[in-house]
Amino acid sequence: MNEQTFYIGIDGGGTNCRARLEDASGTLLAVGNSGSANVMRSVSTAQMSMIEACEQAINAAPVKCALNQVVVGAGLAGANVPSALASIENWAHPFAKLSVLSDLHGACLGAHGGADGAVIIAGTGSSGTRFLNGKFSDVGGHGFIVGDVASGAWLGLSAVQHALQVLDGIYPLDDLTQAVCEHLSVSIPLDLVQVVSGFKAKDYAAIAPIVVALQQQGEANAQMLFARAVDYLEKLATQLVANTHIPLCLIGGLSAIYQPHFSPRVQEHIVSCKHNPEQGAIYYVKQLTTQE
Amino acid sequence: MNEQTFYIGIDGGGTNCRARLEDASGTLLAVGNSGSANVMRSVSTAQMSMIEACEQAINAAPVKCALNQVVVGAGLAGANVPSALASIENWAHPFAKLSVLSDLHGACLGAHGGADGAVIIAGTGSSGTRFLNGKFSDVGGHGFIVGDVASGAWLGLSAVQHALQVLDGIYPLDDLTQAVCEHLSVSIPLDLVQVVSGFKAKDYAAIAPIVVALQQQGEANAQMLFARAVDYLEKLATQLVANTHIPLCLIGGLSAIYQPHFSPRVQEHIVSCKHNPEQGAIYYVKQLTTQE
Repeated sequence: MNEQTFYIGIDGGGTNCRARLEDASGTLLAVGNSGSANVMRSVSTAQMSMIEACEQAINAAPVKCALNQVVVGAGLAGANVPSALASIENWAHPFAKLSVLSDLHGACLGAHGGADGAVIIAGTGSSGTRFLNGKFSDVGGHGFIVGDVASGAWLGLSAVQHALQVLDGIYPLDDLTQAVCEHLSVSIPLDLVQVVSGFKAKDYAAIAPIVVALQQQGEANAQMLFARAVDYLEKLATQLVANTHIPLCLIGGLSAIYQPHFSPRVQEHIVSCKHNPEQGAIYYVKQLTTQE
Repeated sequence: MNEQTFYIGIDGGGTNCRARLEDASGTLLAVGNSGSANVMRSVSTAQMSMIEACEQAINAAPVKCALNQVVVGAGLAGANVPSALASIENWAHPFAKLSVLSDLHGACLGAHGGADGAVIIAGTGSSGTRFLNGKFSDVGGHGFIVGDVASGAWLGLSAVQHALQVLDGIYPLDDLTQAVCEHLSVSIPLDLVQVVSGFKAKDYAAIAPIVVALQQQGEANAQMLFARAVDYLEKLATQLVANTHIPLCLIGGLSAIYQPHFSPRVQEHIVSCKHNPEQGAIYYVKQLTTQE
């Protein structure tokens, strides 16, 4: 490696792909941002998004730099699936070097600056991992609808399922159902079912703020759903940090909402993130490069 | 109407379309069977399935009869959705007459011979309706994944969600998880997620017998899932028959499993079906014809 080497860290999720360009000494030069980079969903889309985000960063940089001078570490959604990881690793990419890990692992390395530690992500989806003695152990996740308990999508779907039972007369009318119906502009089960018929995880997640707001106002059924989410996350956190002294970072749009609800035993582990997932991906590729 | 008029009753679901051909006096002449007739999913497929099932019955009949001599009553999945019902009603069909109602309503009219009564269907899906004073009131249903609580698909999905949490170490290993993993030939979360990634309602429903068998053997987590299903069906049944003396029929692959678990108050209403859904559809079209 010489002075002409640059580093890009990528955090590629289902909707956004962020790139962070640094020089060899670790100085931030520029950032880039593009669309979906989930390699499980589409390897070719992920490749395009990665190149687009990297070119954006390179074009915005105050120094001259080309794709083939850049060592890239990429944390990508779906890279936990071996077949998807293999597809992206076999890519004849235009970079000087490319090392891929899952977006969850990139976030974990970033959060703890490459040191031992755990993360729980609670946003549209949910998942957790820990990095300990050089190894990752994933817990949770698995995606909507089979997993991602306590995620925004899970809260939203649970609220819709509850609302349908209320509209059926199985449970008495409550504020949660009224708020869900208002949000979706429906008043009868048939319309509610039609509106959500094409819903994906992010659409259900858009209902989550309603559940959160009502939970904070003391609405009984919102509190019940929220309590089920907290119960799961407490178990997930315990699974990650039990019998260790590792720190735990909470990441994602719902993390601040959930944080006060963990038990004191879990709270003891919670710290703020040191760096972002893009920096975690740079850390990863630098470690690999050093080992070579 | 003269002697040359025949009647066909159709029960059209998501996978099967059954036709029953009768002469004007109500004597069974022949039956036919074809594929999907869910008008919500595809009106053109439903039309083809209906014609195929009717032609099968006509060709198998001991008397000569043509499509344009046949008065058809059709209970079709998806016909509860007004837009889907309108599409099939606007069809320039080849029959002497066609009257469409939902498959659930056809089943209810058949079960009680056109008299007041309620039905609960518990198979791959779940739903309920009652016919009282000439009007139907639907409760439950709404389809997988937002509704159909206690259905085979619901039991199967719930078992998979549970198994993933067990494989994550969130809950201790149990017989239910082992049985689900054996059924799907998987042993780690990643493989389980991959296997079910394309699963539809019927695929999840194929897991339900595992839950039922373990529930009967006293497995704690299968019993917990089953108890949630029973709790829902009890509320559904109560909603249908409360403050009435109407009889209740249970229909579908899981009905015999659930029947003993209803409360005495619901049990009092339960009777056997008088006729099948095809006969219910014939009853429906005959009633309409009489009224004209």
